[in-house]
Amino acid sequence: MKILVTGFDPFGGETVNPSLEIVRLLPDRIGQAELIKLEVPTSFQRSLPVIERAIRETDPDVILSVGQAGGRAAVSVERIGINLSDARIPDNDGFQPVDQPVAEDGPAAYFATVPVRRIVERLRRAGIPAVLSYSAGTFVCNHVLYGVCHLIASHYPHKKSGFIHIPYLPAQTVDKPEEPSMSQETALAALKLALTVLSEEGEGNRTAQKNPSEKMSFHP
Amino acid sequence: MKILVTGFDPFGGETVNPSLEIVRLLPDRIGQAELIKLEVPTSFQRSLPVIERAIRETDPDVILSVGQAGGRAAVSVERIGINLSDARIPDNDGFQPVDQPVAEDGPAAYFATVPVRRIVERLRRAGIPAVLSYSAGTFVCNHVLYGVCHLIASHYPHKKSGFIHIPYLPAQTVDKPEEPSMSQETALAALKLALTVLSEEGEGNRTAQKNPSEKMSFHP
Amino acid sequence: MKILVTGFDPFGGETVNPSLEIVRLLPDRIGQAELIKLEVPTSFQRSLPVIERAIRETDPDVILSVGQAGGRAAVSVERIGINLSDARIPDNDGFQPVDQPVAEDGPAAYFATVPVRRIVERLRRAGIPAVLSYSAGTFVCNHVLYGVCHLIASHYPHKKSGFIHIPYLPAQTVDKPEEPSMSQETALAALKLALTVLSEEGEGNRTAQKNPSEKMSFHP
Amino acid sequence: MKILVTGFDPFGGETVNPSLEIVRLLPDRIGQAELIKLEVPTSFQRSLPVIERAIRETDPDVILSVGQAGGRAAVSVERIGINLSDARIPDNDGFQPVDQPVAEDGPAAYFATVPVRRIVERLRRAGIPAVLSYSAGTFVCNHVLYGVCHLIASHYPHKKSGFIHIPYLPAQTVDKPEEPSMSQETALAALKLALTVLSEEGEGNRTAQKNPSEKMSFHP
Repeated sequence: MKILVTGFDPFGGETVNPSLEIVRLLPDRIGQAELIKLEVPTSFQRSLPVIERAIRETDPDVILSVGQAGGRAAVSVERIGINLSDARIPDNDGFQPVDQPVAEDGPAAYFATVPVRRIVERLRRAGIPAVLSYSAGTFVCNHVLYGVCHLIASHYPHKKSGFIHIPYLPAQTVDKPEEPSMSQETALAALKLALTVLSEEGEGNRTAQKNPSEKMSFHP
Repeated sequence: MKILVTGFDPFGGETVNPSLEIVRLLPDRIGQAELIKLEVPTSFQRSLPVIERAIRETDPDVILSVGQAGGRAAVSVERIGINLSDARIPDNDGFQPVDQPVAEDGPAAYFATVPVRRIVERLRRAGIPAVLSYSAGTFVCNHVLYGVCHLIASHYPHKKSGFIHIPYLPAQTVDKPEEPSMSQETALAALKLALTVLSEEGEGNRTAQKNPSEKMSFHP
Repeated sequence: MKILVTGFDPFGGETVNPSLEIVRLLPDRIGQAELIKLEVPTSFQRSLPVIERAIRETDPDVILSVGQAGGRAAVSVERIGINLSDARIPDNDGFQPVDQPVAEDGPAAYFATVPVRRIVERLRRAGIPAVLSYSAGTFVCNHVLYGVCHLIASHYPHKKSGFIHIPYLPAQTVDKPEEPSMSQETALAALKLALTVLSEEGEGNRTAQKNPSEKMSFHP
Repeated sequence: MKILVTGFDPFGGETVNPSLEIVRLLPDRIGQAELIKLEVPTSFQRSLPVIERAIRETDPDVILSVGQAGGRAAVSVERIGINLSDARIPDNDGFQPVDQPVAEDGPAAYFATVPVRRIVERLRRAGIPAVLSYSAGTFVCNHVLYGVCHLIASHYPHKKSGFIHIPYLPAQTVDKPEEPSMSQETALAALKLALTVLSEEGEGNRTAQKNPSEKMSFHP
């Protein structure tokens, strides 16, 4: 199986984005899964086209996007993306939509289709604080989560998609020491574990196709 | 020079105490400083006697105690210990004082005598979130901070003392994912840097004694 | 016009629910709107039937539900309800669903149809902290928000619905003093202002029907 | 008995200071206590002289200062003032001391001498969130707390002093809605209750002087 893993470039005055840092450090394979790593601009207009082209070119089974969630203390596995963009700060193109839909013709929301609860449980068992999250905000992260789900629902019904938010890196909170952070090592371990779960799921699905009675669901 | 570095055993239902974990991982020397590592019980009655004996036996130049501060996101370099014990939970002996002085005959408070601001600045330059803290609470941590300062003021006027609080480890927040945490690697790096500052200060003082005109103050 | 305003009974070990307290204190009219006040049980199974019956019996133009959001500091005007119930604590019937849909056949989410942004702006101008919220959680509050939207979408396309979360009352935080709270007076003033906005919208709509060129949208 | 109650003028870009708002709204008497209300500038250099003059002119039995503690959710009854000024922002004179003592010749700290625990308990019984606080910070509030204690210790051994921090008003958090607030009504009720405790203590002391066997302590 193939997993497309995306990270965002820095935004909002930060010089790094932990999501991109850890995506870059991933190996080429985890378990049975080949990993395709992609840098995505923190831009409402350019982010989805970059991901769409990578999907066309690499035909992944799963798209897992990773983003920075400043202010959160735990890895947040996002459960739902909503059809609404409402930015408190401009994106990296200077664009700041207010109450715009992500897709004019789309439904109000999509649930992520990766096994969100299993990922959270796996992280917790490994001693990494993790939660199911019910809001990915209304900035570019949600835009990508909703947008990829919409693309898949429309054109690639067999692909799965999900989104994981990770906290600031410690160095990002030096000038805001009240804010929680997570070390790059911990965040990278979390991402590898999430990808391991996806890899096992993929394996389970392949086995399941041969033995339908053992079929495992990929849905949350 | 010699630095006595102390860490506490776990308390309050936790199975680890990050302060003890990182103290155990310290090397035997940092810069010019020999490190003497000591485990201290989280006990109002037993903690200070354990430290006092180690001071008598090892004659350190500096006593740096390290404790866990659940709920804080940054390394907190404590600036002051107060003559008051008021415990919301029992210590590891089941003792829970309410509004008791640490030392019947002591003053209201002591300032730490290690270079607290220099330590914070060094940590920040290294990308580790750190703050000056003005309250070490009223549990065993403050008891030790005040108690060691009182001992030194009374009997060892040339020794220095200080206290550093570190956040929970990530694994401790798995069941309280709203709480901030800090990885063991980051906390250990912070402690090593603090000890490096103390080692350099000690070196500065020794040089200063030879060259009084270059004398550097050890005070904050 | 008529507005059905609902508040929940206490849950989770609390002896009061601020939402019910302030709904009870509402007058019978605000501006041009007649207010119908309804107590709703904090129960996944009983809440929606109670509201549905009231809708059938009173035929309101708008249904505005109010709930308690412990831990939040500001009035939260909810923007979206999702088709997922996942309770960390049992409801008042001892029922604790895990990953259940609110409506088996419903879409992933509905947007509230009251003018959420205008309500937030009105509250802020009056000096009351208020935010747009993108998650009403996955407990009974979200169940009611989603459920009423689903009912309306299915059977009452001309009715509007919304949900407002208010913080704890100060007395509820006496034993958890780190948690923010809001006085009953402030929360009641917030609810009255929200209802004033709805009343003015209703008036605007009626006028608009007579003068189509002035038509105002009820949507966010 | 007489109680001097002080509130600060606005600082840090705020247009109001809740401490001054509620001090102004106090009655002239509470129980047996005559209240003398005083506005104090948020200034390291001008605050203490203003209070000292009022003490000389009005000879109060107790000095209770009230200040704003942005970010706190509960009324904070301060327990200790420390001999250190370290300002993150300039005071209202543009003065921003770094690591300066409040009194060159003073001890490290003073404990407040009003019955802090009894005040907290009284507030809680009345449904007002309140805590004992162990740090009044290092800005003008702590400067006044320490400074008045130092003045009393030096010149007026029979007077008592204390400090109460109150949260932001709701209107102050409109542009920072994550921050907790407390309504003016609740904060005023809290201050009146604190003054009632002081009034009763004063009465107890007077009775005690006549009946030494019933003597009650004013100390925490």
